[in-house]
Amino acid sequence: MPPVSRLLIDRLPGSKIREVADAGIGRSDLLPFWFGESDEVTPAAIRQAAADSIQAGETFYSPNLGLPELREAIAGYVSTLHPPLGAARIAVASGGVNALMLALQALVDPGDEVVAVVPLWPNLTAQANILGARVHRVSLRFDEAGAGSRWVLDLDRLLERVTPRTRVLLLNAPNNPTGWTLSADEQRRILDHCRRTGTWIVADEVYERIFFEHDAAAPSFLDIADADERLIVVHSFSKSFLMTGWRLGWMVVPEAMASAIGKLIEFNTSCSPVFVQRAGIAALLQGEPLVRDVVDRLKICRDALLPALAAVPGVRVATPPGGMYAFFAIDGQTDSLALAKRLVADAGLGLAPGAAFGDEGEGWLRWCFASRDPQRLVDGVARLRGALGV
Amino acid sequence: MPPVSRLLIDRLPGSKIREVADAGIGRSDLLPFWFGESDEVTPAAIRQAAADSIQAGETFYSPNLGLPELREAIAGYVSTLHPPLGAARIAVASGGVNALMLALQALVDPGDEVVAVVPLWPNLTAQANILGARVHRVSLRFDEAGAGSRWVLDLDRLLERVTPRTRVLLLNAPNNPTGWTLSADEQRRILDHCRRTGTWIVADEVYERIFFEHDAAAPSFLDIADADERLIVVHSFSKSFLMTGWRLGWMVVPEAMASAIGKLIEFNTSCSPVFVQRAGIAALLQGEPLVRDVVDRLKICRDALLPALAAVPGVRVATPPGGMYAFFAIDGQTDSLALAKRLVADAGLGLAPGAAFGDEGEGWLRWCFASRDPQRLVDGVARLRGALGV
Repeated sequence: MPPVSRLLIDRLPGSKIREVADAGIGRSDLLPFWFGESDEVTPAAIRQAAADSIQAGETFYSPNLGLPELREAIAGYVSTLHPPLGAARIAVASGGVNALMLALQALVDPGDEVVAVVPLWPNLTAQANILGARVHRVSLRFDEAGAGSRWVLDLDRLLERVTPRTRVLLLNAPNNPTGWTLSADEQRRILDHCRRTGTWIVADEVYERIFFEHDAAAPSFLDIADADERLIVVHSFSKSFLMTGWRLGWMVVPEAMASAIGKLIEFNTSCSPVFVQRAGIAALLQGEPLVRDVVDRLKICRDALLPALAAVPGVRVATPPGGMYAFFAIDGQTDSLALAKRLVADAGLGLAPGAAFGDEGEGWLRWCFASRDPQRLVDGVARLRGALGV
Repeated sequence: MPPVSRLLIDRLPGSKIREVADAGIGRSDLLPFWFGESDEVTPAAIRQAAADSIQAGETFYSPNLGLPELREAIAGYVSTLHPPLGAARIAVASGGVNALMLALQALVDPGDEVVAVVPLWPNLTAQANILGARVHRVSLRFDEAGAGSRWVLDLDRLLERVTPRTRVLLLNAPNNPTGWTLSADEQRRILDHCRRTGTWIVADEVYERIFFEHDAAAPSFLDIADADERLIVVHSFSKSFLMTGWRLGWMVVPEAMASAIGKLIEFNTSCSPVFVQRAGIAALLQGEPLVRDVVDRLKICRDALLPALAAVPGVRVATPPGGMYAFFAIDGQTDSLALAKRLVADAGLGLAPGAAFGDEGEGWLRWCFASRDPQRLVDGVARLRGALGV
């Protein structure tokens, strides 16, 4: 075949996670923790709502921005966590990743400058690259202090990097893969700065509910921003409502931008299936008990995995305040892809290589701790010890 | 709010169809023919397959390129209509429009030249604009000859316009909105030319089955192209399987390109829901009886609408060999948007303004004839006569 695109290869990082997972194909004794997905099925009431809608014959196009009743339900849900907002600011998308792609399509012209805090799940920066942006990366720092270790943002360095030439600042907090979370104070300083530079903030807050610090949600830019400023916040049903496979998410945008987003949805997927949206309404009606149950169980998982992992000789890891991942390094291990493949081959342990999250993640591994059974996590640590001989 | 994007307004044509439809909100006596959607519910066996999958708990991520069994089923289906091909060339997308967006993301860099045959449904050229392409339009010609009227492509003019600087040629045939269809001979000449210029052909063939000329499908580039050449063919479950709201489509690509498309799917929607894909498998298993039934009924609809429409004084229209639209003009009517709005207000008749399909469509109207009940079409023509006073 002739060459596909002059830029395609540069634009598209191969999935190193997929490369590791492929190495485990056919292994029946595998403990896979590589993907960002719980092993729990979507709750029955949510599934029933979709099945009922299908049986009722709701098989036609939906409005681009989503069913009015779902937009209302989302606005109501968001308003319980953050200052009240109306359905006119909500756009329904085909998953959080799709919402992020729409946000960048709306904002980024070829050649624009985008700044991203990294390590970061690769899709966000790949989207910017596909749209022809120049992406500048500002790296988090691992502040090692034993049990008090944590990931830290050098805020001054970030703000120096965001100038009037910066079109978009990409932030994902709680962060995949590190679990790093922005404080309300940091958010305030970032917002003030971006007001001065005229920079849009695209905040991927899909893990806001997966937050273990006694609050209902991690700090959000929605708590502090005005309704009409340069801010798009993206959320998803995937993680907090156990709905990864449904491909349903949403974005909060300035009201004046909603119709433009509707047009972009038309050109990307046209709409989300009505029956999937009905499931979303059911999820929001189930509401807090479900989310709290998910978070409580993730906290049990985190608290099962982290001490066991931290006790492995040579392991450096911070206890994540949010998200569903442990991001850790092992002394003397610098090639995360090779190590991840070896762990699959030697121990049947499936982890994601840190290099999948950018050069800054090299030498690290990501462990998704979303699991029905915390014992599987402990068993995984035993396999890690076995493979390392420690 | 501050300005959204410097190019956004230019990039995104507002939906003039939506503008007309909004004018009809609240009218209970409306006969709407503006959208490209049948008024028939998806057949029960297809819906049951999705409901069963949901109840069985298939709520997790799918592989980016789709379930292997759906890719196999699609390859088998395509191979019954065209030369055999394997599942490795199939990528499942979230609707035909999403498949087209993926194709253009794979091929188009900012500044690239794209040539499109028009009038054309607006999404295709909008997608190219979003990606920073320069779009050149080559217009079909209405060849007026009473009952023998037809839309004609000036092939020499098109081939002159496609040069080594042309990255992609966009073709939608059978065409929305005109019903124009490429002959096998024209396809051969286009393919030969594009081989010389190194131009990719992106063929939107979603109406290939909605073809009334005694063949199972309209001529396809898949009939004549080699497996590894610069060709992406896009298809959808929406029209021929009555599945508009499901957002399920596919693309046939050179095998060497499939993994790059898989990455792009990851960055756009990640995958199509598994239960939606199960519905697609059921649709293909139902297979020919369903599609033939759909096409037979559309032919009855076409043959009810077209003579009645052609008999209206001042109407110019070609009988479409494929697709599900009548594209027609009325003597003395030059502002299609104003006319379409007036038809809604005065007669409760919902048509799409030709201007929605580009400047070349100005002065024309599009009438979707996909309907359970052909009498509704005849009633619509009576309303048109009433509004025009003829």
